Amino acid sequence: MLLLIIMGVDPGIAILGYGLLSMEGNRFCVISKGAITTESTMSMPDRLSYIYNELNLLLKKYNPDAYAIEELFFNKNIKTALTVGHARGVAILAASNNKVPIYEYTPLQVKQAIVGYGRADKKQMQQMVKMLLNLNEIPKPDDVADALAVAICHGNSSKYSNLFKL
Amino acid sequence: MLLLIIMGVDPGIAILGYGLLSMEGNRFCVISKGAITTESTMSMPDRLSYIYNELNLLLKKYNPDAYAIEELFFNKNIKTALTVGHARGVAILAASNNKVPIYEYTPLQVKQAIVGYGRADKKQMQQMVKMLLNLNEIPKPDDVADALAVAICHGNSSKYSNLFKL
Repeated sequence: MLLLIIMGVDPGIAILGYGLLSMEGNRFCVISKGAITTESTMSMPDRLSYIYNELNLLLKKYNPDAYAIEELFFNKNIKTALTVGHARGVAILAASNNKVPIYEYTPLQVKQAIVGYGRADKKQMQQMVKMLLNLNEIPKPDDVADALAVAICHGNSSKYSNLFKL
Repeated sequence: MLLLIIMGVDPGIAILGYGLLSMEGNRFCVISKGAITTESTMSMPDRLSYIYNELNLLLKKYNPDAYAIEELFFNKNIKTALTVGHARGVAILAASNNKVPIYEYTPLQVKQAIVGYGRADKKQMQQMVKMLLNLNEIPKPDDVADALAVAICHGNSSKYSNLFKL
């Protein structure tokens, strides 16, 4: 049976969550998960370089078949959108430069894929991620759980995935 | 006398303006200027990769001493901020990965450096850029003129430049 390796990321400047899953049929297994973190004392160029280099290492090490990232919607301020945009641009570039196909999902799609309905709250999502991946506890920080969630979402949608290709 | 090479950029996904100036004392000379453009038919990952690679080539070719970029303020929508944020993140990363020091200026600082007062309009700015650089005409598209303006701004402020280092 086809083994698919999916990398999910939840981009941010201070914390970028990532999760690498293998998928065989409907069965997921966590290969690696974690957070790339940068201190606010670092300059923006240094933070972006660090994030890019760490992602690059992960991409080269695991060579995923797909890279899943959440589409962002903001009700916050424009400055936040611009800053997250920097991190997200660099996260997309890392995958693109490694020739890994990138897929984008809306928060609604992720919730529907994990919990089955779009109004699920954060806690329900995290419980489902834990259950679907047979983890002993909910992954911390939240960004890691979110990255795993978008990777699962891609796995579950991958038969239709051409629809969402960025 | 010290010769300084300054690269200015005006980031965007569809059009990224750039300008490379040499500066000797108070005298500027245009080494190269232009726009990196991507079509809206390209995917976002391909656009970001293309922009990164083109900037990388320019940075390797001219090895500038400084990289000047405008700080962004938006009165537009959040989606625009996020998209421009992607391009700006990649533009900062390119310089950072090439170990070129990056300096950020507000639109007000750029206007004051070029025209002498902060309420200058676009046309006045472009006329001054043309004059200061001894060009036969105003650089087109506007993004190129803006990139040259921020490079001049850095040149004129470079004695205080540690203040603005990103």
